[in-house]
Amino acid sequence: MLSLIYRDYIACLNDKDWTKLGQFVHDEVSYNDVPGTLAGYIGMLERDYEQIPDLHFNIELLVEDAQTVAARLLFDCSPKGTFLGVPVHGRRVCFRENVFYRFRDERIERVWSVIDKAAIEAQVL
Amino acid sequence: MLSLIYRDYIACLNDKDWTKLGQFVHDEVSYNDVPGTLAGYIGMLERDYEQIPDLHFNIELLVEDAQTVAARLLFDCSPKGTFLGVPVHGRRVCFRENVFYRFRDERIERVWSVIDKAAIEAQVL
Repeated sequence: MLSLIYRDYIACLNDKDWTKLGQFVHDEVSYNDVPGTLAGYIGMLERDYEQIPDLHFNIELLVEDAQTVAARLLFDCSPKGTFLGVPVHGRRVCFRENVFYRFRDERIERVWSVIDKAAIEAQVL
Repeated sequence: MLSLIYRDYIACLNDKDWTKLGQFVHDEVSYNDVPGTLAGYIGMLERDYEQIPDLHFNIELLVEDAQTVAARLLFDCSPKGTFLGVPVHGRRVCFRENVFYRFRDERIERVWSVIDKAAIEAQVL
C-alpha cells in the first residue's frame, strides 16, 4: 500500500526529519521532469521551510495505484516574503497543491506538481 | 474501470459534444468545492473553447481508485487574449492541469483542479 508509505513521507516532511527522507525518496528524483537528487530535494524543502516557517502538509485527497500516488494537499500558512512571485509578506494564505508521485521499490522517483498560484494571488493582491 | 469512462469523457470534451456530456457529468457538479450545474459546466467549457480555439485535452498521467480519477493533463495551445490573468494574446503555450474527479454512479460529481499558471507566465512574461 503506497498510501501508507506516502502518509509516513508526509509525516517526515512535517517533522522536518531530513535524515529520514532517504527512506522515502530515491537518490535520483525528478521534479516536474527536471532531473535532481535527494540532496537537492532536501534543499528545496529547507528553502520552503525558511520561506514559510509555519509550513504544514495536510492531505485532503489521496488516490493510489500500484506505482503512483496522487494527492491534493492543503496548505494554511504565512509565507514571509514573496512566494511563487506573489508578495505575500507574512499574510496567512490557504492554497492547494495537486501532485503525483511515481514510486519504484517503495520510494519516490518522480514528482509532478502544480501549486494553485491563482488562489494565493486572489487572497493577497 | 473509471479510467475507461474518463477517457470517453475526455474524448467528449475534445469533440465538443456537449449533448453527450450529461452521460459523464451529474446535473449537480461542484468545481473546487463551489456547487454548480451541468449547464454551468458546459458554459465553462464553451468559454474555454471560445478563449482557446485550438484547445485539446491530452492525458499524461492517470490514477484511479474505486470512486476517484486523478489526471495530469497536458495542454499545448494558443489562448486568444488574457488567460488566467496572463496576457497570452495568441502565443502558443504549454502547461499542465493536475485534477481530481470524484465519481458517483459512473458520473462525475466533484472536480478539484489546479492549473499551472506559473508555467504559462514563464512562457509569455
